Amino acid sequence: MNVTKILQSVKNEELPISEAAKQLSGFSELGFAKVDTQRKARNGYPEVIYGEGKTVEQIVAITEDLLTEGKAILSTRVSAEKAVVLEQKFPDGIYHKDARCFVLNPSSKLTDGYIAIVTAGTSDIGVAEEAAITAETFGNSVKRIYDVGVAGIHRLFANLDDIKNASVVIVIAGMEGALVSVVGGLVDKPVIAVPTSVGYGTNLDGITALFSMLNSCSSGVSVVNIDNGFGAAYNASIINKIREGE
Amino acid sequence: MNVTKILQSVKNEELPISEAAKQLSGFSELGFAKVDTQRKARNGYPEVIYGEGKTVEQIVAITEDLLTEGKAILSTRVSAEKAVVLEQKFPDGIYHKDARCFVLNPSSKLTDGYIAIVTAGTSDIGVAEEAAITAETFGNSVKRIYDVGVAGIHRLFANLDDIKNASVVIVIAGMEGALVSVVGGLVDKPVIAVPTSVGYGTNLDGITALFSMLNSCSSGVSVVNIDNGFGAAYNASIINKIREGE
Amino acid sequence: MNVTKILQSVKNEELPISEAAKQLSGFSELGFAKVDTQRKARNGYPEVIYGEGKTVEQIVAITEDLLTEGKAILSTRVSAEKAVVLEQKFPDGIYHKDARCFVLNPSSKLTDGYIAIVTAGTSDIGVAEEAAITAETFGNSVKRIYDVGVAGIHRLFANLDDIKNASVVIVIAGMEGALVSVVGGLVDKPVIAVPTSVGYGTNLDGITALFSMLNSCSSGVSVVNIDNGFGAAYNASIINKIREGE
Amino acid sequence: MNVTKILQSVKNEELPISEAAKQLSGFSELGFAKVDTQRKARNGYPEVIYGEGKTVEQIVAITEDLLTEGKAILSTRVSAEKAVVLEQKFPDGIYHKDARCFVLNPSSKLTDGYIAIVTAGTSDIGVAEEAAITAETFGNSVKRIYDVGVAGIHRLFANLDDIKNASVVIVIAGMEGALVSVVGGLVDKPVIAVPTSVGYGTNLDGITALFSMLNSCSSGVSVVNIDNGFGAAYNASIINKIREGE
Amino acid sequence: MNVTKILQSVKNEELPISEAAKQLSGFSELGFAKVDTQRKARNGYPEVIYGEGKTVEQIVAITEDLLTEGKAILSTRVSAEKAVVLEQKFPDGIYHKDARCFVLNPSSKLTDGYIAIVTAGTSDIGVAEEAAITAETFGNSVKRIYDVGVAGIHRLFANLDDIKNASVVIVIAGMEGALVSVVGGLVDKPVIAVPTSVGYGTNLDGITALFSMLNSCSSGVSVVNIDNGFGAAYNASIINKIREGE
Amino acid sequence: MNVTKILQSVKNEELPISEAAKQLSGFSELGFAKVDTQRKARNGYPEVIYGEGKTVEQIVAITEDLLTEGKAILSTRVSAEKAVVLEQKFPDGIYHKDARCFVLNPSSKLTDGYIAIVTAGTSDIGVAEEAAITAETFGNSVKRIYDVGVAGIHRLFANLDDIKNASVVIVIAGMEGALVSVVGGLVDKPVIAVPTSVGYGTNLDGITALFSMLNSCSSGVSVVNIDNGFGAAYNASIINKIREGE
Amino acid sequence: MNVTKILQSVKNEELPISEAAKQLSGFSELGFAKVDTQRKARNGYPEVIYGEGKTVEQIVAITEDLLTEGKAILSTRVSAEKAVVLEQKFPDGIYHKDARCFVLNPSSKLTDGYIAIVTAGTSDIGVAEEAAITAETFGNSVKRIYDVGVAGIHRLFANLDDIKNASVVIVIAGMEGALVSVVGGLVDKPVIAVPTSVGYGTNLDGITALFSMLNSCSSGVSVVNIDNGFGAAYNASIINKIREGE
Amino acid sequence: MNVTKILQSVKNEELPISEAAKQLSGFSELGFAKVDTQRKARNGYPEVIYGEGKTVEQIVAITEDLLTEGKAILSTRVSAEKAVVLEQKFPDGIYHKDARCFVLNPSSKLTDGYIAIVTAGTSDIGVAEEAAITAETFGNSVKRIYDVGVAGIHRLFANLDDIKNASVVIVIAGMEGALVSVVGGLVDKPVIAVPTSVGYGTNLDGITALFSMLNSCSSGVSVVNIDNGFGAAYNASIINKIREGE
Repeated sequence: MNVTKILQSVKNEELPISEAAKQLSGFSELGFAKVDTQRKARNGYPEVIYGEGKTVEQIVAITEDLLTEGKAILSTRVSAEKAVVLEQKFPDGIYHKDARCFVLNPSSKLTDGYIAIVTAGTSDIGVAEEAAITAETFGNSVKRIYDVGVAGIHRLFANLDDIKNASVVIVIAGMEGALVSVVGGLVDKPVIAVPTSVGYGTNLDGITALFSMLNSCSSGVSVVNIDNGFGAAYNASIINKIREGE
Repeated sequence: MNVTKILQSVKNEELPISEAAKQLSGFSELGFAKVDTQRKARNGYPEVIYGEGKTVEQIVAITEDLLTEGKAILSTRVSAEKAVVLEQKFPDGIYHKDARCFVLNPSSKLTDGYIAIVTAGTSDIGVAEEAAITAETFGNSVKRIYDVGVAGIHRLFANLDDIKNASVVIVIAGMEGALVSVVGGLVDKPVIAVPTSVGYGTNLDGITALFSMLNSCSSGVSVVNIDNGFGAAYNASIINKIREGE
Repeated sequence: MNVTKILQSVKNEELPISEAAKQLSGFSELGFAKVDTQRKARNGYPEVIYGEGKTVEQIVAITEDLLTEGKAILSTRVSAEKAVVLEQKFPDGIYHKDARCFVLNPSSKLTDGYIAIVTAGTSDIGVAEEAAITAETFGNSVKRIYDVGVAGIHRLFANLDDIKNASVVIVIAGMEGALVSVVGGLVDKPVIAVPTSVGYGTNLDGITALFSMLNSCSSGVSVVNIDNGFGAAYNASIINKIREGE
Repeated sequence: MNVTKILQSVKNEELPISEAAKQLSGFSELGFAKVDTQRKARNGYPEVIYGEGKTVEQIVAITEDLLTEGKAILSTRVSAEKAVVLEQKFPDGIYHKDARCFVLNPSSKLTDGYIAIVTAGTSDIGVAEEAAITAETFGNSVKRIYDVGVAGIHRLFANLDDIKNASVVIVIAGMEGALVSVVGGLVDKPVIAVPTSVGYGTNLDGITALFSMLNSCSSGVSVVNIDNGFGAAYNASIINKIREGE
Repeated sequence: MNVTKILQSVKNEELPISEAAKQLSGFSELGFAKVDTQRKARNGYPEVIYGEGKTVEQIVAITEDLLTEGKAILSTRVSAEKAVVLEQKFPDGIYHKDARCFVLNPSSKLTDGYIAIVTAGTSDIGVAEEAAITAETFGNSVKRIYDVGVAGIHRLFANLDDIKNASVVIVIAGMEGALVSVVGGLVDKPVIAVPTSVGYGTNLDGITALFSMLNSCSSGVSVVNIDNGFGAAYNASIINKIREGE
Repeated sequence: MNVTKILQSVKNEELPISEAAKQLSGFSELGFAKVDTQRKARNGYPEVIYGEGKTVEQIVAITEDLLTEGKAILSTRVSAEKAVVLEQKFPDGIYHKDARCFVLNPSSKLTDGYIAIVTAGTSDIGVAEEAAITAETFGNSVKRIYDVGVAGIHRLFANLDDIKNASVVIVIAGMEGALVSVVGGLVDKPVIAVPTSVGYGTNLDGITALFSMLNSCSSGVSVVNIDNGFGAAYNASIINKIREGE
Repeated sequence: MNVTKILQSVKNEELPISEAAKQLSGFSELGFAKVDTQRKARNGYPEVIYGEGKTVEQIVAITEDLLTEGKAILSTRVSAEKAVVLEQKFPDGIYHKDARCFVLNPSSKLTDGYIAIVTAGTSDIGVAEEAAITAETFGNSVKRIYDVGVAGIHRLFANLDDIKNASVVIVIAGMEGALVSVVGGLVDKPVIAVPTSVGYGTNLDGITALFSMLNSCSSGVSVVNIDNGFGAAYNASIINKIREGE
Repeated sequence: MNVTKILQSVKNEELPISEAAKQLSGFSELGFAKVDTQRKARNGYPEVIYGEGKTVEQIVAITEDLLTEGKAILSTRVSAEKAVVLEQKFPDGIYHKDARCFVLNPSSKLTDGYIAIVTAGTSDIGVAEEAAITAETFGNSVKRIYDVGVAGIHRLFANLDDIKNASVVIVIAGMEGALVSVVGGLVDKPVIAVPTSVGYGTNLDGITALFSMLNSCSSGVSVVNIDNGFGAAYNASIINKIREGE
């Protein structure tokens, strides 16, 4: 950021004051939000819009602000109702229904190494797709390996090579989350575990799967919040890019 | 229980009143305890002494009362200090240090079928031994398979035949308890799971292992209280005896 | 599984490749699910469809895959809405409304010994019926004994013979779950306890009943997850079949 | 309290100012404590000293202040070490070891009706004795019925008449607390339940017994804090005195 | 219950077998329920219908069974929808909307002494009315004292005489439940506390109020389940009747 | 309050008895509520209507009672539906939609010093507006600083002067609540923290943010209940008025 | 901080490099700690040493570093064993045993307005003294009002004037914490509540008191962590100084 | 593993049967443990000895077994008492007191890139040292940055370059764990967070820090179990080695 240059442009009336303020401060002031325009420079990835607590008007406004940067824009936890509005506003965008993600300008180039996304059951697929779309939007190759929970452990072994050859492994499971420890004991890559709220009774909306994963007897496992497919993919992407030498 | 006969014996002074009262009421009144003398007739096994909250004097008194019945007597959760007193009082008894059990008159005949007792780690052995001694005291054959947790799952597969051929399987694990689901997915025998308080942090003194086991994705699993090796063996023994046609 | 024979059949074009792959791998690849076709060989019972987190389309697809095996097919936690579709697709199937189960090809031969299913109250009947239908689908005789909670304990004693003569006893209770300990103290058969989420306030959606049952002062009790009528019946069925010498 | 008379006595130097202040204010100012001297007038019973968080010096000072009132003085949760000091200071006092209570000037006249104190097990006796000594200190007759838990329910029925004929029933149990519901379903007197911290694992230091009792399917049950034998007896005493027409 | 007389009536065809079975067994077998017909004899009050988990058809059936006894019939937790059906079926019954209770044949004679029902706030009134209607149905005089929480403690003091002169005091409060301790410190009658689920955040649906009341620094307080107005009134009624010499 | 004067007015028929009773007792008796008319004298602010558990009829009645005092009237947690009725009944009132507050007669004079209201994210704005409207209704100047969470900490530093120059700082955050500690470490004014229920998974409806704030490593932080914007502003207002010398 | 002047002094060898580094960086690097030397400039008070997790050697080293600043030094949570060493090292320091605080160079001038420190019971005095010593060390006048819990509410009213006339009120209570709401309803000053871990059973080591206080029905209450007497006094001191016009 | 060659060696009596069995099975059978000798081949690192639940005799035996492999041997959670024995048995080993680790044959070659280990406070250093020693034993360069918590955030900024330039960042914090989010918002490297049990009250032995970190508003954060310095370093080491192209 060249401060003098920005100020010169303002003086020359080549740059509107609002845009200059945004560049100098590192964020866009929208009143209800201060959109972080330095995120990519600082963290490697642009700000991602978490759709849950926001109105569709707020999502639209933030999206429009980010669009001026020309970067990949990812909105997560977007309901089907909000997606209808977004698709009208941004016809180039794609809504991934299972993942509940809305994507604009995804990365067009994918990594050589891939992220393996492994689920224990069918009901975990929503979270897995949030992870997969996030990873792909950020330019990672992804391999999906779904429904290989330990109740029928031969299904896991039949897919073990694909898991072992990944750069990073994301394991997604609800209930007791045992799949994480089994996978963790079989690979030499970082394993990022995502507990899901799939289950009932003592599952406690995913707390049991979470605590189970944090107590994994296998060593190379770290954990993100319940149902946080996005967070797992974000971490996996950073690691995968390290491997790619980025 | 022949009431008339008992009363006749009292009249003939062949039976002391205290003994007659015990037979008629079905328990011995010790003041601080009412020892259940009908337990074996009703439940198949005599009353077991839970040593934790009792003084050694109380354990001795209950043991002496049960001795008149001539049945196997098992005291669990007996500290090494209390064991010294018990060994002096009852020289025929044996104190099993790892199991923290004191045993008198164990069953001399063992079943053909056996109970497999499987642990995830070395630290679970105390609970496993409580289960093993309980099962043996009640006349069951036992096979011990220790430290086969899923972090090195080949150790489990190397012992799988012994587990599959058991009549009942007891799986004992702390931390995340993943071993239970893996075993449960591989056998067609009843699996009784025992969570242990082994672990730290989010293990929550075994609550996480417990909840994990209750949420097992494998179907044939039932669970007992944390560290309750005795209870698992008691259940396994009932089932094993059914198989033996008892 | 005779591998050479399967390969021979493929070579002779007697067996389609997809079917051969399924037989060799032990599961059917449906994309969103990997249906476990070795479950019965491994665990004694075929895979059961847990309907909760699945769309009706997914249930239909898995059912169709399992149908080719010619085994009993049980879908649990099936809502009335989904049942309408299933009944149209599979006219031979029966939807058990209270149990919320859909059944195809139930076992036609029932065991001699029976499983007693005992509830504390009227509100526990939904869970009890899930257990009853599961047990019957798997070929077990069942005796239903409902609403015998300890607030009017004479109702329990009036039905005690039926409970004592069962091969296995399932006790289902919400609130404080006291019925489990009372039954456990009176029988010499395995007691499988199912806590239900019936109650309010400190019931904590069944956690209190669960913890109460795990702490039972009666010894021969093991426990399954809250509202898990299916799991209790599955366990009971394994034990009952042992008794039948299967 | 006649204010004018007190002031007159002060003026006449018949009453020390400190004593007058105490009478007028309704409490004795000890610096670290303000001893409530109106408690008996207001609540029917004098202030009781809860010994747990207090030094023995503080207990002595409060005892000496209360002694001037000539009423029964009860100190609960008094350790054996503190009791030695109290017995030296107040030779007329009696230390009840099991109850961990120190008593001075207990009520000499006992009620006709009695309070039944019922425990599930031997380990609950400490709490039961705190209740019994409290009740007796306040002038109630007490009947102790110990170790009648539902694992051997015939022990309860053998003592049922003594329970039914009581004015008030205190039921004390740890583990799952099932005894409370069974007793509650059989009597027409107020039942005060005391959960104890006896047990392990999911007992959660008595929380499970507490929640179980609050969820009792029997209606006439109210509950006090875990291990609060004193509180149960205090409540029972108020009710018993109502019955006596006091 | 005169067994011989009942059997004689059956033989003489004066009594239908179903009615004789009901009298001898002490309950009516309705299939989904076993209505306890000995409840009044055993506990002093007839069985009360807890409406929450029951269909309106089940409530009607149980009501009809109880009607033959000619006793007061109370159904609690009855929704407005179910009440419409009940009012049509039983035109003599009255639905108390705030209390969500349906009452048939309430006691016509009221006690001299009264139960004071005290609430901290306006939002606690639903629970308070459940208590009030229960108490009145069982024949107790009631005095309602609503919205006297400690934030404006002069409102409590303005009503203190009515509270002090009651036979029993029920205190109902949500949030932090402080009113219970203040009232408990001012009266010499039994105080039954009812925590309510009124509040938000750390109120935890009433758990905080419950634990607060169980920890009350005032001694004469016992507690029932969250929102359990019925249970408090049931207990209060037993005590009030003792006072009346019943 | 001049008692004699009030009584004189009643005697002279200048004051209706109901109004005299209200003045003498310090509250208005509305049956379902006892409106505290001494609140302002005692606490500095008039009673505020918490709208959540109340019907709109109850809110109207209490508002009408308070109106006679001529003070600012604030109703919080008022739904849009109830607001429609209130706006019709009280056309002078203003409904603040984001804050869910209905305000009548707000203070017209604002303080010199201001309260800074700082949020971590966009989703926290509802709670922030409840705080802002409360503070303004009570006569405080307010400065809103929204969406300055630590994920983009430069947004906070860009607004630090406005925060440092405030009289009191309210920090509102969900998720992990880290903003509180950062702000607390940078200012020398009282910081009042409000955890919000914004988040998912281990956020536990705000409990995690709450506990995080209570554990803040910065010293000058105190905390109010989850989502309690009103409470924070109430506290801030008291402190701000102290500063103003009121 | 004049950077040029510092550098000049270094160049002139008037200032050792280590001291210059400390002044420029705003902290002293001790290896195991980075002592914050800008704390007073930034927050109004110098860094306080939290003694719990530190060795006495670490406390000594930090103290020595802070001594060079010539400001008041407060160490909290200092055990009696550590105090012996500190008293030897710093003979001018004073160890306050009840408060477990070690103080050097306390403020010599006290404020006009005072902080009222109010406890519910005798066992809360340790926490109260931590608050009192903190406040006094920071130059505040303090008034101690101990043991005025609501079980004997007249003790509170006898001291109400002292509470009402304070600048800020700290209320410290364990068990159910009801005192906070009562005081909060009677004063127009900020009330800072400190829950203590005093109690047993459902007290949950102070969590119940904490949640109770956060749910206070009185509005002007904010809360600090369990047993955090220091934090309460720190907050109170900031507010009190505002009032003094500092 | 060349099976034929191993068998040939046995036949030739060049290899003892026990050693051959170990090589073929992939573990050493010690009775109480099955030491995993394939761990390094499978996971990249040899088995690590978790010392907590093991006797010193067990640690010695496992160490001796692993020694034959000639790899780095790390024992964590080793008490000072056990270390004395280990140092005698294995004079080449080094006991790291703060880390509570015993190390034999650490990696002699260190990576170019380094792992930054950052703590919020002084009390977190024990956990940090466990992480540091683990990382160094596995051949990673480490940079220690201790006591930079957000209460004095300038201490963090003074060290930001060292954090930003690391390959992986481990952030260790107790209390509210806010440091994690601040660091996470400033770097583009993987951040592994370790909650510690440092704190009191609502810290809940680290659960609050854990949940706080899982809810971090910064995206690139994953979390391990409470106090699990070892696990964090293990994960960091895998990632760091990826970067090194290993």
